[in-house]
Amino acid sequence: MIKVGIVGGTGYTGVELLRILATHPEAEVSCITSRSEAGLAVADLYPNLRGHYDLAFSEPDPDTLAQCDLVFFATPHGVAMRLAPELIARGTRVVDLSADFRIKDLDVWAKWYGMPHETPEWAEKAVYGLPEVARAAIRDAQLVANPGCYPTAVQLGLIPLLENGLVKTDRIIADAKSGASGAGRQANVGMLHGEIGESFKAYGASGHRHLPEIRQGLVAASGDSQLGVTFVPHLVPMIRGIEATLYAELNNPADFDRLQSLYEARYRDEPFVDVLPFGSHPDTRSVRGANHCRMALHRQEDSNLVIITSVIDNLVKGAAGQAVQNMNVMFGLQENLGLQAPAMLP
Amino acid sequence: MIKVGIVGGTGYTGVELLRILATHPEAEVSCITSRSEAGLAVADLYPNLRGHYDLAFSEPDPDTLAQCDLVFFATPHGVAMRLAPELIARGTRVVDLSADFRIKDLDVWAKWYGMPHETPEWAEKAVYGLPEVARAAIRDAQLVANPGCYPTAVQLGLIPLLENGLVKTDRIIADAKSGASGAGRQANVGMLHGEIGESFKAYGASGHRHLPEIRQGLVAASGDSQLGVTFVPHLVPMIRGIEATLYAELNNPADFDRLQSLYEARYRDEPFVDVLPFGSHPDTRSVRGANHCRMALHRQEDSNLVIITSVIDNLVKGAAGQAVQNMNVMFGLQENLGLQAPAMLP
Amino acid sequence: MIKVGIVGGTGYTGVELLRILATHPEAEVSCITSRSEAGLAVADLYPNLRGHYDLAFSEPDPDTLAQCDLVFFATPHGVAMRLAPELIARGTRVVDLSADFRIKDLDVWAKWYGMPHETPEWAEKAVYGLPEVARAAIRDAQLVANPGCYPTAVQLGLIPLLENGLVKTDRIIADAKSGASGAGRQANVGMLHGEIGESFKAYGASGHRHLPEIRQGLVAASGDSQLGVTFVPHLVPMIRGIEATLYAELNNPADFDRLQSLYEARYRDEPFVDVLPFGSHPDTRSVRGANHCRMALHRQEDSNLVIITSVIDNLVKGAAGQAVQNMNVMFGLQENLGLQAPAMLP
Amino acid sequence: MIKVGIVGGTGYTGVELLRILATHPEAEVSCITSRSEAGLAVADLYPNLRGHYDLAFSEPDPDTLAQCDLVFFATPHGVAMRLAPELIARGTRVVDLSADFRIKDLDVWAKWYGMPHETPEWAEKAVYGLPEVARAAIRDAQLVANPGCYPTAVQLGLIPLLENGLVKTDRIIADAKSGASGAGRQANVGMLHGEIGESFKAYGASGHRHLPEIRQGLVAASGDSQLGVTFVPHLVPMIRGIEATLYAELNNPADFDRLQSLYEARYRDEPFVDVLPFGSHPDTRSVRGANHCRMALHRQEDSNLVIITSVIDNLVKGAAGQAVQNMNVMFGLQENLGLQAPAMLP
Repeated sequence: MIKVGIVGGTGYTGVELLRILATHPEAEVSCITSRSEAGLAVADLYPNLRGHYDLAFSEPDPDTLAQCDLVFFATPHGVAMRLAPELIARGTRVVDLSADFRIKDLDVWAKWYGMPHETPEWAEKAVYGLPEVARAAIRDAQLVANPGCYPTAVQLGLIPLLENGLVKTDRIIADAKSGASGAGRQANVGMLHGEIGESFKAYGASGHRHLPEIRQGLVAASGDSQLGVTFVPHLVPMIRGIEATLYAELNNPADFDRLQSLYEARYRDEPFVDVLPFGSHPDTRSVRGANHCRMALHRQEDSNLVIITSVIDNLVKGAAGQAVQNMNVMFGLQENLGLQAPAMLP
Repeated sequence: MIKVGIVGGTGYTGVELLRILATHPEAEVSCITSRSEAGLAVADLYPNLRGHYDLAFSEPDPDTLAQCDLVFFATPHGVAMRLAPELIARGTRVVDLSADFRIKDLDVWAKWYGMPHETPEWAEKAVYGLPEVARAAIRDAQLVANPGCYPTAVQLGLIPLLENGLVKTDRIIADAKSGASGAGRQANVGMLHGEIGESFKAYGASGHRHLPEIRQGLVAASGDSQLGVTFVPHLVPMIRGIEATLYAELNNPADFDRLQSLYEARYRDEPFVDVLPFGSHPDTRSVRGANHCRMALHRQEDSNLVIITSVIDNLVKGAAGQAVQNMNVMFGLQENLGLQAPAMLP
Repeated sequence: MIKVGIVGGTGYTGVELLRILATHPEAEVSCITSRSEAGLAVADLYPNLRGHYDLAFSEPDPDTLAQCDLVFFATPHGVAMRLAPELIARGTRVVDLSADFRIKDLDVWAKWYGMPHETPEWAEKAVYGLPEVARAAIRDAQLVANPGCYPTAVQLGLIPLLENGLVKTDRIIADAKSGASGAGRQANVGMLHGEIGESFKAYGASGHRHLPEIRQGLVAASGDSQLGVTFVPHLVPMIRGIEATLYAELNNPADFDRLQSLYEARYRDEPFVDVLPFGSHPDTRSVRGANHCRMALHRQEDSNLVIITSVIDNLVKGAAGQAVQNMNVMFGLQENLGLQAPAMLP
Repeated sequence: MIKVGIVGGTGYTGVELLRILATHPEAEVSCITSRSEAGLAVADLYPNLRGHYDLAFSEPDPDTLAQCDLVFFATPHGVAMRLAPELIARGTRVVDLSADFRIKDLDVWAKWYGMPHETPEWAEKAVYGLPEVARAAIRDAQLVANPGCYPTAVQLGLIPLLENGLVKTDRIIADAKSGASGAGRQANVGMLHGEIGESFKAYGASGHRHLPEIRQGLVAASGDSQLGVTFVPHLVPMIRGIEATLYAELNNPADFDRLQSLYEARYRDEPFVDVLPFGSHPDTRSVRGANHCRMALHRQEDSNLVIITSVIDNLVKGAAGQAVQNMNVMFGLQENLGLQAPAMLP
C-alpha cells in the first residue's frame, strides 16, 4: 500500500485526486493539508466524499508528509518549489501538479510566474511527467513535474508529427478551449456562473503561461530549437474538458496518406491515448472523468494543413489522473490502476 | 461471473448500465440488443466505452437472452411486459428498468401508459425493487420492477415519516426537479439544448405517470390507502440529477425533536442512503454518477411542516445504479459491488 | 426628460437598469455611482453598453444625486436607508431596489437584515412598489420600495386567491427556483460556474429573507394576519429567471371552475401579467429580458390543491424592470415605456 | 410602414425576426408562413411573443406574399431559390436568410448543397448582403442574399487585412465556435441538451458549407483568387453566440504598429462593428441579442501572426438582425432602426 500525502487539497485538483484514489487498490491517502481549511473534515467540504474518507485537512507539516511514500502537490505555484526538496531529501517521492518544475529555462519560468525560482537544481532534476514521452525516466524519478492541462492535450496531439519531422515547425497553431474548472476554485467575479455560464471568449490571446511549456515540449519532440507555436486558450461554459484544435503544415502533402497509421502506431501501446478514425470529432464528454486523450485527424480540400482535434478532461489526464498514472509508473504498478472506469456519458 | 444481457441498450439507461458494469468484478455483459442499431459497435455509438467493450448491438433474440443469468430491460414501456415472462420461464432472472411491472393496480397502469397490461400475473409477481424497503423479497425475485427516478427520490425521503405515522397523509407535496437526461435520448424538439439549455419550467403539473407509482409506495409505507400526494415535476437545465423538495405536516409538532435521529436510524445500515445534518442542503452534484441518495431535514419558524430535500442521480440510483444494486442483492453479492466510486465533483 | 441617478451601479441590477434605460424615450441617466469603480467608464465594465453610454462611475455625491428627478438605489441593504431620506428632503424621488424599505415591521426587518433600521419613519412612509397592487399610491410616492424577485413572482401568483378568500391561509407553500444572477455579482466560491453550472439544490430551506416580505404581502392581500406560508428557494444552473410553483388549498372545491376566469379578470388590464390557458407550463425563457410575469393554473385529480406556476425574469420584473415600471407610474408616463421589447427566445 | 412577409417562420431565425420587428417603428409583419404549423397562432408556438402579435402561421401563398413590400425567407435551402423570383417579378423585394443566393459559383453551390441551382440568373443578380462591404448595392437590390453566421464573423474580422494586402493569402485560418441555436430548431438527437449541454467538440473539420462562402468573401476582399483559408467550426454548450479566432501572417511585421488604427478607421462609421482596444477579449455575451460584431487584435511574442477574435450573435448579426439591417438599407431608413437595444448582459 502506497502511503500518499496531498498538499493543498481544497482545490479542484485536490478533490479530484481524492475521488480517483478512493478506489485505487494500492494507494491510501494518509494526509491532506490545507492552511485555510485545517481541521475541517474533507467530506464536509466535498459531500461527494461522504463515506469515502474520515480524513480532515491538516496544517502542512513536513514531518508528517515525510512519512508518506509519495506526496502530491496540488498547490499554487511557488509552494512545491520550497517544500518538495526537503521531502525528497527525506526519502519521499513527489509529483507536483503545479507549474514549479515544468519549465527548464528558469528565466522563462521567472518571467511567466513572476518570481525567481528558488530551487533551480530541482527544476533541472525534475522529470516532466508525460508518460507517453518519458515513461522510463518517470519510473526512477524522485520528483515528477506533472504537465499542465493544455500542454497535455496539445503535445499528445502534435508529437507524432514532430517526432517524424513531417511538418513545418515555424507556424504551428494550437487553438484550445477549456471548461471553467481549469481556473480552479478561487473566489473570482470573472468565473461566476452569472458571468460565464452562457458565453464564450478567448483569453490570454497575447500570451499565456502554458505557451512556454507547450513550446518546450514541442521543441523536444522535434529537435528544432527554433520551433514557433501560437497558442490561444478559450473559456467554454462547461465545467470539465479541454479540446485543442491543432494546425500544422505538412512538408510533403503525400504524407497525408500515412498519417492515420502513423498516429495509430505511435499510440498503439498507450493505455490512455485513443486515436479515432480519420475525420472523427471527439467530444470532451467522451473523456469526462476518465484519463484518456482521444484525438482525430482531418484534412480539408486543397490544403496541406493537418488538423488534429484532441480532447482530455482537464482535471484527469490534464491533472489528477495523469498524476496518479505517474504514481503508478513510479511504483511499478499496472499503469491504469485506479483509472479504469469509463468516462461518464451523458 | 454473472452473465448479463441488456435489452434496449441505446438509451441513456442502457449506456449507464454499460458504464457501471464495465468495472463490476462479478458481472459480464454478454449481449446487448437494439432493433434500430443492430450491428453497430457499442463503442461507435458511445465513444466513452471505446476500449471497454467489443460488443455490438444485436437484434433481440430470446434464445440468446435466455442464456443470460440476468437480463436488464432498458426499453420503452410495453416491451418487457411481453418479452420478460418467456425469459423467466426459461430460467433467466429479469430487472425491468421500464414501468411495465411497477404498478400493481393494472387499471391505473393501463390509464397512465395507454395500453392494457398483457401479463397481469407477472405484474402481480414482480417485486418493486427499492432495496431499502424490499431487500428480502428482491433476493429471491425472478422479476424485479426497478423503481422510477422521481419515485425513488420521493419515497426514500418520506418513508421514515410514513412508516412511523408521524404526518398527515392527506396533503403530502412532492415538488421535484430533474435534469434533461430523464427524458431519454429521443429526437424531440422540446429537449433541444436551444430550447431548454437556459430555461426552467414545470411540466406534467396536472398529472404525471410517476404520481401513481409514488402514491403506491407511500400508501404501502403508511398503510393508509386514502393517502393523498401532490407531485409536480420540473425540468432543470442540467444533464443529470433529481432534487425533490418534500412537504408533510406533523401530527404532533413535538416530534420535530426526534426526526433527525429517526431518519439516521432508519438508514444507518443502508449503503446508499445518506442523511445529512439537520438544515443541510444536498446538491445534485454530490451524487452525480453515484448510487447514493442524500437527504436533509428542515423546519421553518412557527411551522408544523417537515421539509425534506432529497437528491439522487436519475440515471444511477434513479435507474441503472439501482438496477445493479438489485442485481447484487438477487445474486447474493456485496450490495455495493461495482457501485463504490464517489460521485464526480466538480 | 426624467433626469435619473443610479446609486451602486456595478451589480447586475445596475447594469440591467442601464440596459433598459438605454432605450427609454423619456428618461436619461445623468449619474451612476460606485465607490469601488469610481472613474471607470460604464462601458469598460459592461461591454454590452459600448456605444450606449459615455458615463463613468462616480463617487456617490448627495449634491449631484439631488439634482436628479429620480434616483434608483441598486445597493446592498443598509445604504438607501441612510442616503435616500436626504435626497427626498431635497425633492428627489427614490426607487429603492434593495430591501431597506420593504418590511413594515422593523423588528422583523432588523432580525433578518442584521441591523437596526435607522430611518423608521421612512420605512413607514415608503410605498411597496408592486404596481398590480399599489398603483395609485406609487403614483404619488416620494419613496418606493421595489419588491424582491421571489416576492414578486409569489405574490402575483397568489393574490387573486387571497383577495377573494378562496383558500385556506394556514398552509400556503411557495417552492421557488432562481437563476444564479439572483445572488448578485459578488466574488463568491459558491457561485462559481465550476460549483453550480451543472447542479441543483435548495438553499435557505430553514428560512430566507424573502419569507417575511412574501408573508407581509400575502397577509395584506388576504386580510388574515395569521396567514402561514412556507417558502423554499432553489438555485437553478441558469443565469436569469425565477419560477415559483405555488400550492394552496381551496376552501370550496367547486371554486375550481371559476379560477381561470377569476385570474384572467384580475389581470386583464395589467400590461405585465399574462395568465396562460389552464394547464399551461410557462417557462422562464418566455420572459427572459422582459418585464412580464406569466402564470398558469393546474389541478391534479382528486385534489383540492390549486397549483400555480409563475415565472418572471428576476432582473427585470424581479428588479430593474419593475423599478422602471414604477418610475413610469410615478411620472405619469405610459406604464410600459422602455419595457416593450419581447423576451429573448431562444 | 413597410409591409413585411416572412416565409418559414417557425425556426429560430423566424422567431428572431419577429422579436426584432416587434419594436421596429417602420415595419409591420403582415404575413408569416409555415407549412407544418399553418393555422397555429405565432404566440402559441413562441410564448415570448404573447401580446406582441395576433398573427397566425399560414400556408405560403404567392399572391399574399406578393402584396408585401419585403419578404424574408427563413427557410431551408432550396425554397427561396424557387419562390423568390416570382415575388420579385411581382415587385416584392426579398432578403433570403438561407444559402440559396450566397454563392456565385453554382457548381460549388450545387456540390455543397446537394442539388442543382434552379434560378442561376438570380444567383448572379443577388447582392451578398454584408452592408459593411456592399451597402450601395444593397440599397438598390431586389434580392439580397443574407450572409451566413460564421461567414459574417470571419469576413468582418479579416477584410481590413485583406483589403490592404497586408497578409499572406495562402494560409489564413478561421477557428470558429458557435452556440447550439446555429443548428436550428430541428428534432435531432445530436442537439439534445443531454448530448451537448456539457461538452465541446469540433464538427465539419474536414469541410463545412460555410467554407466556400467565407472563401468567396475573402477572395473578393483581397482580389486574390488563389486565396486559401482553413475553417473549423466548433459547437459550444450555449444557445447564442459565435466567436471566431482568426490567424493570418503579416507580409511585413512592421505593419503590426498600424493595425489597430487601420481597423478603427475601417469601421469608424459602421454602426454595428466595434473594434475593442488592442489585446481585449470580446465575449459572446457582449453581443447577445444585439446586431453588433465586436472584435479585438492580438499579437504573441516573436510572432508574425495577427490574431483577431471576433464575436457576434449568430441569430442577430449572423441572421435576423443583419436581415433587418439590410431592410433598413434597402428602404432608405436609418440603418440601426429597430436594432438599438443593447445586448443582454448578464
